[in-house]
Parts: sequence; C-alpha cells; structure tokens
Amino acid sequence: MVANEVAVLMGSISDWSTMKLTCEQLEKLGISFEKKIISAHRMPNELQEFGENARNKGIKVIIAGAGGAAHLPGMIAANTTLPVIGVPIKTRTLNGMDSLLSIVQMPAGAPVATLSIGDAGAKNAAILAAQMLGITQTSVQEKLIALKETQRQAAIESEARFD
Amino acid sequence: MVANEVAVLMGSISDWSTMKLTCEQLEKLGISFEKKIISAHRMPNELQEFGENARNKGIKVIIAGAGGAAHLPGMIAANTTLPVIGVPIKTRTLNGMDSLLSIVQMPAGAPVATLSIGDAGAKNAAILAAQMLGITQTSVQEKLIALKETQRQAAIESEARFD
Amino acid sequence: MVANEVAVLMGSISDWSTMKLTCEQLEKLGISFEKKIISAHRMPNELQEFGENARNKGIKVIIAGAGGAAHLPGMIAANTTLPVIGVPIKTRTLNGMDSLLSIVQMPAGAPVATLSIGDAGAKNAAILAAQMLGITQTSVQEKLIALKETQRQAAIESEARFD
Amino acid sequence: MVANEVAVLMGSISDWSTMKLTCEQLEKLGISFEKKIISAHRMPNELQEFGENARNKGIKVIIAGAGGAAHLPGMIAANTTLPVIGVPIKTRTLNGMDSLLSIVQMPAGAPVATLSIGDAGAKNAAILAAQMLGITQTSVQEKLIALKETQRQAAIESEARFD
Amino acid sequence: MVANEVAVLMGSISDWSTMKLTCEQLEKLGISFEKKIISAHRMPNELQEFGENARNKGIKVIIAGAGGAAHLPGMIAANTTLPVIGVPIKTRTLNGMDSLLSIVQMPAGAPVATLSIGDAGAKNAAILAAQMLGITQTSVQEKLIALKETQRQAAIESEARFD
Amino acid sequence: MVANEVAVLMGSISDWSTMKLTCEQLEKLGISFEKKIISAHRMPNELQEFGENARNKGIKVIIAGAGGAAHLPGMIAANTTLPVIGVPIKTRTLNGMDSLLSIVQMPAGAPVATLSIGDAGAKNAAILAAQMLGITQTSVQEKLIALKETQRQAAIESEARFD
Amino acid sequence: MVANEVAVLMGSISDWSTMKLTCEQLEKLGISFEKKIISAHRMPNELQEFGENARNKGIKVIIAGAGGAAHLPGMIAANTTLPVIGVPIKTRTLNGMDSLLSIVQMPAGAPVATLSIGDAGAKNAAILAAQMLGITQTSVQEKLIALKETQRQAAIESEARFD
Amino acid sequence: MVANEVAVLMGSISDWSTMKLTCEQLEKLGISFEKKIISAHRMPNELQEFGENARNKGIKVIIAGAGGAAHLPGMIAANTTLPVIGVPIKTRTLNGMDSLLSIVQMPAGAPVATLSIGDAGAKNAAILAAQMLGITQTSVQEKLIALKETQRQAAIESEARFD
Repeated sequence: MVANEVAVLMGSISDWSTMKLTCEQLEKLGISFEKKIISAHRMPNELQEFGENARNKGIKVIIAGAGGAAHLPGMIAANTTLPVIGVPIKTRTLNGMDSLLSIVQMPAGAPVATLSIGDAGAKNAAILAAQMLGITQTSVQEKLIALKETQRQAAIESEARFD
Repeated sequence: MVANEVAVLMGSISDWSTMKLTCEQLEKLGISFEKKIISAHRMPNELQEFGENARNKGIKVIIAGAGGAAHLPGMIAANTTLPVIGVPIKTRTLNGMDSLLSIVQMPAGAPVATLSIGDAGAKNAAILAAQMLGITQTSVQEKLIALKETQRQAAIESEARFD
Repeated sequence: MVANEVAVLMGSISDWSTMKLTCEQLEKLGISFEKKIISAHRMPNELQEFGENARNKGIKVIIAGAGGAAHLPGMIAANTTLPVIGVPIKTRTLNGMDSLLSIVQMPAGAPVATLSIGDAGAKNAAILAAQMLGITQTSVQEKLIALKETQRQAAIESEARFD
Repeated sequence: MVANEVAVLMGSISDWSTMKLTCEQLEKLGISFEKKIISAHRMPNELQEFGENARNKGIKVIIAGAGGAAHLPGMIAANTTLPVIGVPIKTRTLNGMDSLLSIVQMPAGAPVATLSIGDAGAKNAAILAAQMLGITQTSVQEKLIALKETQRQAAIESEARFD
Repeated sequence: MVANEVAVLMGSISDWSTMKLTCEQLEKLGISFEKKIISAHRMPNELQEFGENARNKGIKVIIAGAGGAAHLPGMIAANTTLPVIGVPIKTRTLNGMDSLLSIVQMPAGAPVATLSIGDAGAKNAAILAAQMLGITQTSVQEKLIALKETQRQAAIESEARFD
Repeated sequence: MVANEVAVLMGSISDWSTMKLTCEQLEKLGISFEKKIISAHRMPNELQEFGENARNKGIKVIIAGAGGAAHLPGMIAANTTLPVIGVPIKTRTLNGMDSLLSIVQMPAGAPVATLSIGDAGAKNAAILAAQMLGITQTSVQEKLIALKETQRQAAIESEARFD
Repeated sequence: MVANEVAVLMGSISDWSTMKLTCEQLEKLGISFEKKIISAHRMPNELQEFGENARNKGIKVIIAGAGGAAHLPGMIAANTTLPVIGVPIKTRTLNGMDSLLSIVQMPAGAPVATLSIGDAGAKNAAILAAQMLGITQTSVQEKLIALKETQRQAAIESEARFD
Repeated sequence: MVANEVAVLMGSISDWSTMKLTCEQLEKLGISFEKKIISAHRMPNELQEFGENARNKGIKVIIAGAGGAAHLPGMIAANTTLPVIGVPIKTRTLNGMDSLLSIVQMPAGAPVATLSIGDAGAKNAAILAAQMLGITQTSVQEKLIALKETQRQAAIESEARFD
C-alpha cells in the first residue's frame, strides 16, 4: 500500500468548512492526502501517537488547522520532525488573532509554518505542501508552475475584462 | 510518603524568574509543592505522562507558566481532570499578549484558570491554588484570611504613612 | 438546609444568554448552585455583602460573568477568600477584549481564575468549579472523568464519521 | 472646618509617581485637595465607605488613578453621584492599554471621565477637576483662562526660539 | 433669554443614532441643552468659533461625539476652558478603537473626559454632565441620586424576577 | 521674496528629534522649507490661520508631525486644499499606534497622507513632498531619481561587502 | 495622445467595490485616469513594468488599493519616483488592520501616502491626488476649493435641518 | 558546481543580527546555503530576478527575513514556486506585529511559511528548511531526529539540575 503524502488535521468538525479548501486544492494538485479530526484537548493521546508515527506511515507533510488557543499544530510539531503547516481558523470573538498568535509564536526548536487566517491560509496550505514535495518531485513542480501561470492568466484576463 | 499538594510546572528554565514567585508564595502559605520544568515542545511525552498520572500521585492542583505560543497549561489540562492554573509569561516581542491568548482562549471542555501576565499572575497562582485547597482545608482557609488581613493592614498603613 | 456549592453571578440580565451555559453544565455535573444578578456598578452594597458572606453561607466556589469594564469578578475576589472564576462576556464594540483585560489583569493578592471569552468560557466555568470541588469529592471527580471520556468518544466518533 | 474640594485617590503607593502630577497641578490652580491610597482589591470596605460619604464630607470631584484591571475609578463611581475622573496608570506588561479599557468601558449609568494613559492624564485630571469647579467658581475660571494663556504663550515662545 | 446648560455636538448626522441617547438622558434629567452638528474637518471655523464663545453664551458643559480620527472633542477642548466630554463613536473598520485613542490620548493641558465607545458612552455623557452641574445645583444632585436609586431598584427587581 | 515650498510643522518641541530628519532630507533634496511649532491644542488660532493662509503664502506642501491624540495634521488638512503629509510620532505609552490611528483614519473629504511611525516616516515625508513637487519640477525629479539610484547602489554595496 | 494623469491600481477585482469610489471622485474633479488590476503576487512582472514606465507614460500620481499582506502600493513605490497613494482595503479577518500596517510601515526611502481603511480612504485618494496636481494646476485647485466649500455647505445645511 | 540548497535573504544589513541565527543553525545541520541582502524597496529588480532564477540555480528553499511593511518574503513567493519561509523581524515601534501581519496575511496563491517574530523565528527557519529537505534526504532527517533528541535531553537535564 502506498501511503498518502499529506495529512490534513483539524481540531474539530467545525473547522471543516475552512479546511475543505485545503483538501480541494490538494486534489487539484494531484497530491494524495488523508484528512483527520484530532482534538488537541480531547484526544491528546491520538495527537501524540499521530505525530510520533506519521513519518513511519510514509506521510511527508502535515497540515493542521485550529482556532482559539490553537495547540494542535504546535503539539504535532513537538512530536515529529516532518514539516508542519498551521492554518489559524477565524474565531467568533477575536477574529483569529488568538489562533494566529497561538500557532505562530513557537519557541526555537519546533517550527510551525504558519499561513494567513482563514480561507486564504487553508488554500495556501495545500500549495505550500506541494512546494515542499516539489523540491524533488518534478511532476509536482510542473503542476505548481502551471498553477502559477493559470493564476497569472486569470488575473490578466480579469484585468482585460475590467479595463 | 505524603504527596505534594501542588505541582508548579514551567516550560523552560527562563520562566523561573517569574515562577519562583509562585513557589515563594506557596511556602508562605505552608502548602507543599514540587516544581518541574516540562517543555511542551521538547518533552511532550513527559508532559502527557505527568498530566495523566498527577491525580494518582496525589497532586491536587497544577500550576503551569509558559510564554509565547504557550501550550503547556492547555495540554496539561487536556490530560487531567485536576484544576490547572495558567500563568502567561511576559515575552520580549509581544509583552505576553501572545502568552495570554494562547492560554486563556481554551475551547469548551478543557479550562485553564488564567491569571495576569507576569509577576502578579505568578503570585496569584499560589493564592488561587490555596483558595482551591481551602474549600475543605480549614487551616489553609485561615492562612488565606490572615493573608487578606495582612494585605489590608499593609495597604492601610501605607495609606497612613502617605497622608 | 444544605447550601449550594456554587454561586453563578452575572452583571446584568443581558449576560444570561452566555451564563446559562454555565448553569446547564453545572446541572449535568450534578453540582448544586444558585444564580444571581449583581451589578457591580448598580448594586455595590449587594456585591460586597455577597462577597463577605459567601463562605459563611456554605458556598465553595463563585463564578462571575461580566462584560466591558468588567469589575464584578475582581470585586468579589476582593471580598472573599473563596476561589472566584471570571467569564469575560463578548462585547459589541471590542469583542470582549475589554472584558478579558478587565478581569484577568488583577494585581497580586486577589486572583480571578479567568476563562475564554464568551460561550466556551461559560461552559468551562462549570467544569473548573467541578475540578475544584473534585479535589476532595470523589463523586465529582468521577463525573469529570466520565465527561472527559464522553468528550473524547464524541471527538473520536466525529472523526470516525468524518473520514 | 472647610472640606477639601477634590479627593485624589490611587490604588497603591506605586501610583504616586504618576498621581503626584495631579496634586502639583491642583496646587498651582489653588484648589484644595486630599490624597488617599485606597486599594480596590485590598480595602474594598474603605473604598465603598469613601464613595458613599464623599459628597457629605463636602468633596466635589473625585480623581482616581489605577493600573491593570483598574477597578478603583469605576467602583467609586458606583458609590457616588459626584463626578469621577479616571487616570489609567501605565503598566509594565500592556503599557496601560489594560488600565485604559478597564476604566473607560463603563456600562450605562456609572460614567468615569477617563483621561490619557500616564503623566499627561494625571496632569489633565487636575485641569478637568478645575474645569468642573469653574462652572460656578469665577476665580477658578480665571485661573484656567490664565493657564491656557500661559500654555499658549509658552508654545509661541518655544516656536519663536525654534525658528 | 436663559442659555442652555449643555451643548451636544457631533461630527456628522450619522453620529445622531448614538448621540440621541445623550439627548434623551439629558431630557430625563431635566437639563436644558442644544444639539449641533459641527464637522471638525468640514467646519473648522464654526468649531473654533463655537469653542471660543461657548462660555460667554452661558453654556456650562460641552459633550462631543465623533468617530475615526475623531478630532472634534479635542479641538473644542483646545478652544475653551469649559469641561468637554468625549464620546467615541463605533466605527465600521476598527470598532471605535480608533475613535477612542483619538479622543482619550490628549496631551497635558487640554483634557477630554472620555467615556465608553458607543451607546453606553452616549448615555453616560448626559449623566457625567449632570454630575458636573450637580456640584452646585441641588436639584440636579437629587435627580442623580434618584436615577442611581432607580437603576439600583431596576437591577434588584431584575434579579428578583430572575431567581 | 520667494516663498518656501514646504512647511514642516510639529506639535511640540519634543517632536523635533524626529522631525529634524524631515528637514535634513529636504535640505539634501534642495527643497526650500520653513519649520514651525504649532500646537493644535495650545495654539488653535495659529493652526487655523496657518492652514488658511498657507497657499497664499506660496507654500505647496505641508508636513505635520504629531503624537498621541494627534490632531495637527488633520486640522491643517481641514483648513487647506494643499496636500498635507502626516508623520505619527512614537509615544511612550502606546508606541505611536495612537498617533497613527489619530492621523490616518480621516473621514472622506480631508485626506492626510500618512507615513510610517517615527524616524522612517519623518525621512519619507521629505521624499514624498519632493515626489509631489517633482510632478512638474524636472530638477526635483532628477534628484529623486538620483536618490533612488544612490539608495540602490548603497544596498548593492552593502550586499557586496556582506557576501 | 495625452496621457492620463492618475493611475488607479488594485490588487484584485474584489477591491473594485472600494476603489470605484476613487474613480467616481476623480471624475467629479475632472481628472483623467486609467484603472488597472495588478496583482502584486500574481503579476509581479506587470507590477514592476508598470512602476518603471509610469512616469514615461505621462502618469503623474499612482493610487493603489490592496488588502491583507498588501504589497502592491509599496512595491509600486519601490519602482517609481512618482508619488504613490495607498488605500488599505478592509479585510474579513482583521478588518483592514493588516492592510494598514502592511502599507503604512514602509522603510525610509520609499514612502506610500497612506489613507484611512476602506471607503473613506478610497474617496480621499482621489482628493489627495488632486491636491498634488493642484500644486501647479490652477483649475484643479479651483475644483478643490469648490469641493471644500460644497462639503462645508452640505455640513452647514445638514446642521440647519437638524437643529 | 553544486548549488547551495538554501538561500537566506534579508531586507537590510540591520536584519543580520537576527538572521545570523538562521545561518548558524543551518551550519549545525550541515545544510549548504548562501546569504544575501536584497532590499525589496531598493533593489526590486534584483528581488524579481532572484525569485525567477532561484529554482534554476538549484536552490531548494528560500528563507527571507524582513521588518515593518515587510514585502521581501511575499514578493519572492510571487516570483517562484519554491517554498518561501518568512521571518518577521522585531521592530522598534510595533515590536514586529507589523512585520508579522505583512508577512503572514498573504492572499490565496502565494503562501509564505511564517515563523515567530525575531530570534526564535530565525532559528526555526533553518529547522523548517531542513524539515523540507528531509522529506527525501535521509541524512538531513537523521540530523533533525538527533537535534530533537538533543533538545529533549537538554530540557530533561535542565529539569534534573533544577529539581
């Protein structure tokens, strides 16, 4: 059995409306992935187990979305040497500023590659994961170059229609 | 062997200059405690083990100080049903606002009793732990009442000298 | 007459939509409580009287929710040696950041155990109160352990349905 | 015995380095005042008593400086119908943003006339108190007009020397 | 002709939905007032003229509401020795944090008595103005004492119905 | 007599340590200027007079630095149709965030061209003024192009030495 | 062919609902302009080319609106010596505070004339551009003076109807 | 000639005191790198050229540190499909909050893997780059596992000495 290259984790089912954007983008880039709910505060054993075994299972990049006192990305990073990408979920009270600071302000030794709050961050998580895989996978590189060109063309056409 | 009633945890030796205020106050209140460095990001296994076993060891209240993306208090709370008190350590970049939000904004199900940033929070952690123990321990109650009276007298005398 | 173990205070009837989550959770945990509106700014005498007499009435933990320049939790803490739990109510202008800072930034000597802004904080207030009572009450401990297990199972089932 | 017109309160002796600027300015304006340390959290009875009796003692305006979870000005306002002026003291962790929000964000019914954080606010507290007294006292009005003219001349001379 | 005691200024007609709460409360307190739109940035001459002449017209207290880079209260304060009360209007982008800082952070020499952002601040502006007038007007004092008692009774009855 | 092209205003002599960077940069660019202290809150008449007459005196661009509740740039903009450049001065309490919001958040109708807080903003004020004058003055354009080239060469040489 | 005097750039078609206010105001002031979508992150070559050639094409002022990590205004400023005006677009997560800081906090050497977040900033961008052109164009000056008078009359009439 | 695997960019020589921590950590991990000053605002052509050619030169990961309106990481990301890591440099006015938001809040399509403000972020940039390379390079993986173990041992020994 070939392992999935990317794991997409989220702290709760309520994060899915954001994190599905990650999954859709991974699909468009042809990258295999598995998605999983792991609540840092309700399933700490599963979190730790997941972090410790991810590399052995063949996973290459971990994406984790979480909100509020968002501990999932950082605690995964504490338990693996795989790259961990964090997506700060927008919160109802502090708009995701709490999520952002809880994810990005990691101490030396356990980086979390933090992206923008909410939807843009979720889409970018897939692209960043692809960029990491693309370091050695030529086919992923080509898809990223094509995506960049598509984005550029879309922007140029949007401008052409606009003027 | 009689267990210590309170455990004072901190994420790193650099938090000691703040957290020693907790220990000094616990000593003044005659409460037995142990102090321990457990880095959430460097010692996640020890963290989890500590959280899971704390109640069985006889510990009654856990105090945890941490700074930045401060995950120690919340991850301890994820692993125990003992009350967990969080002290946000002041940080050099964001003055502890990051620590505060990372500790206080916990999701439903895993509360962390959060106190003020820095020294005042560290002293208050000891008093809050004593208040919890004082629910049933008359001797601790008496010490808290005496402390409150001492504080009040000190304030009144400060005012008397001032006028 | 046996006293209630927990008092749930709020600054105004408008805080009830948040603080009822505290009461519902206390009921689920089988903890006796009384609820009360005490406006710090409209009923300062009642506030002080309540704080001074709470312990003698048999109350063991006080929960106080308040918004804006939220003085209720801190002023109760000034008048009692019982543990006081503060719930910052979300505000229309500053989203509860004002409530949070007004409650959490207490000076040394009068801790308020502060929880997250809004609904999550209100639910957690009940759980934290139970954790404090559970230090010595085995039946409450068991309910907390059962709650944690229920939360864990719910998260795992949510994950099972999700995958 | 003629009562003092203004009471200058502060939460702790450590606020004196700021609040002495209030007293110096009151002296320059020839306004009688008394100064007092009343810790909201250590001396709640004194606070309440002071608020309740201030008008009967002949006090006309109350100035209160406090820092952090600054409850002194608001709780005085809860206990009197005299005008209360609040001075947010600069704090070491959050620079006085916590003091400002704790003082200014009062609910409808109990205003605190809030001034700028720190020294400028302390000086302005004296001037605002004088402006209130000056509504009916011609001699105070004249002193305020003279102060404004002096300030204006100083600024103009500063500009003259500068050019 | 007897002058109005209070002037209620606002920067734009869009501030009226907030500032009408000031006017309603002044009416309830039986205080005569005039209301006026003076845009600091569109009518600077009128602003200055108003500030300079207010005292001579018999006005005793000025209330000014403004939003964003809110210069109206401070510039009125620059042109008069009457007490000036500032109400920070809630803004669509920064929720009134911009209004608050623009009004409250005045330099030494020109205080603005700043109240809470939005509706609560607007109501409190009327009460604070009454407190200033009440320093010497016994009838206003009595109305404030009655208002405080009414508020207290309303809170107590709200609590009675609630329990 | 030929008028100065730029006026550099500041609210107080204490702003000079920042605003002298503006003047030094204007000198380097060969642009004539006058500098002036005009306190918005102490010299409101002078402020208004200056704003109203600036164009007639031949001034083409106004630069204004101010801190805290920074009203100088906006009130100048209210009184002229010349372009006004605002420099937010760093403050001791809120680091200039108050200055920035007080200057930048102007309502529709009276723009202030706001630059970065402190020294960088002060230097850039001179460059922006030159860019405005350079729209039609070829010699100023050439100096700006030369400055840009000098900056670029300095950066390249810094990089060359570094590698 | 006569070139347009102003270029109105935006990072994406979604910014148009804000930036059309700039265009409408430019039309009212009779200033010729072109509008263009240039995504800093999708069309970096076009951005650079535009910046480098703008002056030669006859453009005199560049207005750029962008949101989030808003790089368009600053990168245009890096590539031209024309004055660049930045409009921070309101964002869904951080309300435009991210846009504001990304645009205004430019280093020494490359100023961006930053205006208020959202609609007011967009309208003011047109007025500021006109003020720059009005330094030498008498007809634009007259339109600005007329606009200021119209605004003043509208405010006065609004006040007249209001009273 | 074998290319360097990582490029470490910074906006100015003043960022070197932070970014040298990145270089030291890369050396410890045995990863080849080149370091370069590229000012986004002074050397936009070099920036673009660097971004466009980095992959062809054999570079696999780009690290970029920048402060204030920090455009370097995002503009590099606009010009490459390599993964880009951003380090927000601490600033004197806003402590790096401006740098953080300017780097992290990227729109969909151009992710920047953002790390904590200042020194911790700089060290973590090297580790994150190594984690990316370690996806396929077993020797780098082993170094990361060894580093994690070393960190864990250091923390445990620190705890052992402490107790």
